[in-house]
Amino acid sequence: MRSLDLNSLYGLLEKAQGKLYNKDFLLTWEYDFELVNATMELARALRELHRNGHDIRTFNSGLAVSIFRDNSTRTRFSYASASELLGLQVSDMDETKSQIAHGETVRETAAMISFLTELIGIRDDMYLGYGHSYMEEVGRSLDESFEAGVLHQRPGIINLQCDLDHPTQSLSDLSHLVTTFGGTENLRGKKIAMTWAYSPSYGKPLSVAQGIISLMTRYGMEVVLAHPEGYDLVPEIVTNAGNQAQASGGSFSVAHSMEEAFKDADIVYPKSWAPMTVMQQRTELLRASDMAGLKELEKQALANNAKFKNWEANADLMKLTKNGEGLYMHCLPADISGVSCKEGEVTGEVFEKYRLRTYSEASYKPFVISAMAMMTRIPDIIGQLKRISTKDCMRRR
Amino acid sequence: MRSLDLNSLYGLLEKAQGKLYNKDFLLTWEYDFELVNATMELARALRELHRNGHDIRTFNSGLAVSIFRDNSTRTRFSYASASELLGLQVSDMDETKSQIAHGETVRETAAMISFLTELIGIRDDMYLGYGHSYMEEVGRSLDESFEAGVLHQRPGIINLQCDLDHPTQSLSDLSHLVTTFGGTENLRGKKIAMTWAYSPSYGKPLSVAQGIISLMTRYGMEVVLAHPEGYDLVPEIVTNAGNQAQASGGSFSVAHSMEEAFKDADIVYPKSWAPMTVMQQRTELLRASDMAGLKELEKQALANNAKFKNWEANADLMKLTKNGEGLYMHCLPADISGVSCKEGEVTGEVFEKYRLRTYSEASYKPFVISAMAMMTRIPDIIGQLKRISTKDCMRRR
Amino acid sequence: MRSLDLNSLYGLLEKAQGKLYNKDFLLTWEYDFELVNATMELARALRELHRNGHDIRTFNSGLAVSIFRDNSTRTRFSYASASELLGLQVSDMDETKSQIAHGETVRETAAMISFLTELIGIRDDMYLGYGHSYMEEVGRSLDESFEAGVLHQRPGIINLQCDLDHPTQSLSDLSHLVTTFGGTENLRGKKIAMTWAYSPSYGKPLSVAQGIISLMTRYGMEVVLAHPEGYDLVPEIVTNAGNQAQASGGSFSVAHSMEEAFKDADIVYPKSWAPMTVMQQRTELLRASDMAGLKELEKQALANNAKFKNWEANADLMKLTKNGEGLYMHCLPADISGVSCKEGEVTGEVFEKYRLRTYSEASYKPFVISAMAMMTRIPDIIGQLKRISTKDCMRRR
Repeated sequence: MRSLDLNSLYGLLEKAQGKLYNKDFLLTWEYDFELVNATMELARALRELHRNGHDIRTFNSGLAVSIFRDNSTRTRFSYASASELLGLQVSDMDETKSQIAHGETVRETAAMISFLTELIGIRDDMYLGYGHSYMEEVGRSLDESFEAGVLHQRPGIINLQCDLDHPTQSLSDLSHLVTTFGGTENLRGKKIAMTWAYSPSYGKPLSVAQGIISLMTRYGMEVVLAHPEGYDLVPEIVTNAGNQAQASGGSFSVAHSMEEAFKDADIVYPKSWAPMTVMQQRTELLRASDMAGLKELEKQALANNAKFKNWEANADLMKLTKNGEGLYMHCLPADISGVSCKEGEVTGEVFEKYRLRTYSEASYKPFVISAMAMMTRIPDIIGQLKRISTKDCMRRR
Repeated sequence: MRSLDLNSLYGLLEKAQGKLYNKDFLLTWEYDFELVNATMELARALRELHRNGHDIRTFNSGLAVSIFRDNSTRTRFSYASASELLGLQVSDMDETKSQIAHGETVRETAAMISFLTELIGIRDDMYLGYGHSYMEEVGRSLDESFEAGVLHQRPGIINLQCDLDHPTQSLSDLSHLVTTFGGTENLRGKKIAMTWAYSPSYGKPLSVAQGIISLMTRYGMEVVLAHPEGYDLVPEIVTNAGNQAQASGGSFSVAHSMEEAFKDADIVYPKSWAPMTVMQQRTELLRASDMAGLKELEKQALANNAKFKNWEANADLMKLTKNGEGLYMHCLPADISGVSCKEGEVTGEVFEKYRLRTYSEASYKPFVISAMAMMTRIPDIIGQLKRISTKDCMRRR
Repeated sequence: MRSLDLNSLYGLLEKAQGKLYNKDFLLTWEYDFELVNATMELARALRELHRNGHDIRTFNSGLAVSIFRDNSTRTRFSYASASELLGLQVSDMDETKSQIAHGETVRETAAMISFLTELIGIRDDMYLGYGHSYMEEVGRSLDESFEAGVLHQRPGIINLQCDLDHPTQSLSDLSHLVTTFGGTENLRGKKIAMTWAYSPSYGKPLSVAQGIISLMTRYGMEVVLAHPEGYDLVPEIVTNAGNQAQASGGSFSVAHSMEEAFKDADIVYPKSWAPMTVMQQRTELLRASDMAGLKELEKQALANNAKFKNWEANADLMKLTKNGEGLYMHCLPADISGVSCKEGEVTGEVFEKYRLRTYSEASYKPFVISAMAMMTRIPDIIGQLKRISTKDCMRRR
């Protein structure tokens, strides 16, 4: 599908729209391929409509609440941008300014912030085993309050990164690949290396890597996950990626060397994460506010990371990729050796070559969030697109 | 009046609209019954119009400034929701990011934040003897700048809780009662018990209890205020409640036992507050930044609270209410025994039975704030409602 | 030009509009007189249109990002007001909540916050030698991303105060003067004294004083800069002010006594700042996080300030001004003796006489920012004004 072949998109949406209406967008692997794929193509179409100057406002009143339990630049602004694109006003739920410490339960808070709310974007990626559960609990609370008539509308939750998945990132990455390679069909058989890389920090979530292997294995790609021994992802997610690869006619394998992963790769995605076991210990220490324990864990984890400083995407490794011209990807910010740290995930030379392309990769995120919002909130997306794409519906300036 | 009997509402508004134009909504007892009652009925109508999908935007440009001098979830989001409902953009006056410490006077700040502002919502409930005075000072400053032509419009101040009253809460509570009992006339003769309850925290403002006894006594209700000896409210407010009860044909009495208050009550509102004398001492210690003194006061106050742990709304007490089915109310978050604290204001069993109804109670707040905003900012509210309530004025989605 | 002589304004805009399109508004002295003057007159016209009830929204979608690296009340609310006036949603880039410490480069952040952004307002006034450079770096980054097609539009940067200039302040001050004296031509030959004044704080930026001498010398005014020995401004800026005065037929001189500066002045602007050398040392200490060094510098600087407590605008000094009725100006908040500090820039008596006029002076700022935004973002400002100024384009209420 080309960027603005709206008729093809309408075809995809006919099978997908309504499936997630009054629900949430949490984990890509919980939704069928038609839904996930239509969301991605909708995001790409919204980006083109925006580029062409269309006014994409879909609501004319309502709040878009955000709950950030971790720092963020890209996702925060992407969420604000998507909200503005759709016509909603952002209202940040800053937990330090709320009465949550004052005895509010999750289900109470969920209702209290939702009386005029269409979207709730949540980032909760620090606590392995808890982030996704929290979003589910918020979702059940919204269901209860909506069914009881306390809420006039049921806001849709958008997962802005949890402990398991980072769907706004993975769908942006996919959009970038589809645009770069000229269509989803062209991804079939392409090799993508999702590899761990060295970072001088610790405690980075697993969700980007897990999101990538969980999404790309559905497109018939040859997905290689590479990391040093011990840097495992959540086993169920890895198993599921394998199953998906088999079903889609692609492949999935795990390697323990960057060289092996980069070899003939069409796409490489070198990105650090903490071993699952470190994240589990860290979660328990954080929940117990055990500062001494956290300090000790950090020390050990950094010492362990330091054994793998050679897991750095450099020019020699890039030469191993398909024709020496494999596409480098990153969710940003990257740990760039000699730029943002002494030794990191990628050399300055490699990063600079692909820098603007990583910005393009990121540029899909506001539109991915918008597409997810439409999927959860708009029953007739096709009708909305028909209105938006006319020549009369342009942004003023 | 049924929820959407707009003609009856127009009748109420004819006598009330304009009375508060270019003024503030600060303390319910300072305004005549017609004004307060029309505000409440307007709030209920706006909620119904929203439920029915109407687009309630009343402004098409302007800021809604918020000043929160205490934490808040419900009120913060209610204010953001009301602002969005009316078409205004929220701008939070975060005093830590401002130059207030840098020599700005209240009257200067009031002008500086108001050049394009329609509403200023203020929460200032920590300092007994100062919160309401601060709002009055802001109001006088706005008058001065508006009259001098410095401001092109005179923003309306909405009291989002001060040391004396919490009108957005009490009018939400009243709206909930009117909906529950089927009209203001049906409140006449109903017994409502506003009672203190045990809490493992101290320093809770008096304004909810004061707001409730000050509002419900105007509706011919039998209002009972109950608290342990020494947990007095501000005497002038209590006296005024008694006078209002007499004028409205209701009654007002003070009891010192929860049993007595709950007996045959149609409505119970068990909620902790600090004794007035504790709030006065706390105010002076806070203003003097006397941390040791605050710690000592907290210790004493908690020890005193602990003598009254039996002031907990439990199932046995609820059986004393009218037919054992009295309505439980709370402004949230409640201190729920076994849920948000070990021992608190209400048992988990009682709270759970009424939980969703307390959410409904809270759901009026965005519309109460919107109604107050219209009262202070819109000369012809009837005209606006006529426009909003047509079939052409629907929210898009 | 009278306030709403739109035809004259169109004449000015014909020569100016487009010159700054897809660029930034950073330092007034970098732009030709036609551009700066048209921006000021546009601001005055927008203020009149707002006063007359017009709906000035120019965009119907887009973000206005703010980056505040120093506290602010007036400018923060002026920026929010301007954004709302133009139809944009404010999104604050709070660096403490972002991943900037996490390895992001300036050029990366610039792209990441800009996908749907029309304006970026930046305050960066603490670091002498760095604030303006930072804005330029952001601007170059936006150019790069826009030219590469990563951004669909090129946001305009508005300088909300840097280390060198404070153009939203100086243009507000100029607007106030033009309104007060009845036109730019009437400023010719008027004497304005930009003088240092005593403050019990240290480290105040130089940018207000530098902005004033750099702007007023272009209008044929007699500009006197007065300060104690050692309280020098950046030499290149002072030299440039002299050159501009010569070119415009005005004059520029430096005095070392408040009496001399006030003598026969039509306008006095007494305002504290730190000596350039102190700001340079402070910048290096701040960047090195040398807390002990900063404490020592503050001690020395305050001791030096204290030698000049007689640099206070009092009634006796005001009597020296033209007919004893010279116009007092201040960017606010002023250090008012006996009000906001013991001894400060101005006595309570003098300030009170001019207090409401300083509020009017400040009231231009939202409209100055709006005018700068139009200059950088709207190719056909005249067309927009024609639409906005019709009787059909009124704010609703």
